[in-house]
Amino acid sequence: MQALYNLLAEKFRLTFDDTELLETAFTHTSYANEHRLLKISHNERLEFLGDAVLQLVISEYLFALYPSKPEGDLSKMRSMIVREESLAGFSRDCGFDQFIKLGKGEEKSGGRNRDTILGDLFEAFLGALLLDKGVEAVREFIQQVMIPKVEAGQFEQVIDYKTRLQELLQIHGDVLISYEVTSESGPAHAKEFEVQVTVNGKVIGEGRGRSKKAAEQEAAKKAVENKVDPSCI
Amino acid sequence: MQALYNLLAEKFRLTFDDTELLETAFTHTSYANEHRLLKISHNERLEFLGDAVLQLVISEYLFALYPSKPEGDLSKMRSMIVREESLAGFSRDCGFDQFIKLGKGEEKSGGRNRDTILGDLFEAFLGALLLDKGVEAVREFIQQVMIPKVEAGQFEQVIDYKTRLQELLQIHGDVLISYEVTSESGPAHAKEFEVQVTVNGKVIGEGRGRSKKAAEQEAAKKAVENKVDPSCI
Repeated sequence: MQALYNLLAEKFRLTFDDTELLETAFTHTSYANEHRLLKISHNERLEFLGDAVLQLVISEYLFALYPSKPEGDLSKMRSMIVREESLAGFSRDCGFDQFIKLGKGEEKSGGRNRDTILGDLFEAFLGALLLDKGVEAVREFIQQVMIPKVEAGQFEQVIDYKTRLQELLQIHGDVLISYEVTSESGPAHAKEFEVQVTVNGKVIGEGRGRSKKAAEQEAAKKAVENKVDPSCI
Repeated sequence: MQALYNLLAEKFRLTFDDTELLETAFTHTSYANEHRLLKISHNERLEFLGDAVLQLVISEYLFALYPSKPEGDLSKMRSMIVREESLAGFSRDCGFDQFIKLGKGEEKSGGRNRDTILGDLFEAFLGALLLDKGVEAVREFIQQVMIPKVEAGQFEQVIDYKTRLQELLQIHGDVLISYEVTSESGPAHAKEFEVQVTVNGKVIGEGRGRSKKAAEQEAAKKAVENKVDPSCI
């Protein structure tokens, strides 16, 4: 496991006090079952804990990011971020997949690249981190590893730029934001829309897309990226 | 809201820095909808956050209490504790039901005693507490308000005393725990069982119950309460 310790130290500046916890997080049930006599712990219990701390940290993040989104929208976004495939992706991004201990059968059948296994591994790692270093360390890790991807739009559905723009501009009171289709081209099966977003009559972003909705999102995204100063409109 | 502040200060030694958060936690959607023009916040978003922190704290608690229970059992126990009816009960225990602000219709139809509303209120309160004081304060509050009821067996299914006993006794290695029915009496519709639990041949607890299973749980509970020293058996 020395290579894993090195990876964590170099990439995330993390050193576990209880390395046994870390080993458990990287031990799949199939490996523990194959070595039953050694009574090795596997990572399912840590996954239980990690799932809970992940839900909390992502909830806190979304709650703060969207001060006026209703609870139902926040729940939907959270479930996009914490779903198995997403978490498996984060495991791969971190290089965790090379370190999971699998049983022989599981290894042969491609378990090392299976989303369920890698998603669970990511949660188990967070559970171990919680026990070893506390909830603040988990927040920092998630901030470092997950949030940049969320904010880069890896979860396209998560960032609703129209809402985000509205929230940014409303800091100083109500504003009138409107979206207008300025062009519509192409044949029926491959239409392209161009949309302008204006605030109090001033154009602050433009976007294109295959649907009106997509073009609006794109225009709002541009406006958010343009960092319009809400006090100047 | 002064009465609520007093209650929190006296009963739980809690003073909120951000009392607006606390007011939001105690505002039901029906009240906010009735006063739409005032743009009052209601407690659904805080409930979203409170649900997440509650899940985490209860997960941590169960994880530590049962060092060898599989994840599936822990999940089941957690869901017993955090289900709506349980949380509504905690709201009532805390006296929170008298402070929730409801719309007129909701009040008339008995909303003040409705489990959904009171369960959500409890979660919203935990969400407000998390934002105002951090996760450690939530842990302390749950420890003070919820855990004693859990440990007193209010959630009979939560404390599995047979497992608990096994875990206590196995600290120093494997032991042989066995349960034996010593008496079975009464007519078919009202049987009573008596069970003895022995460890390495020594009786350490006795219990009665309407079923063999209930009597075993009772015997295990007695044994746990007897605080058998695992190094002496």
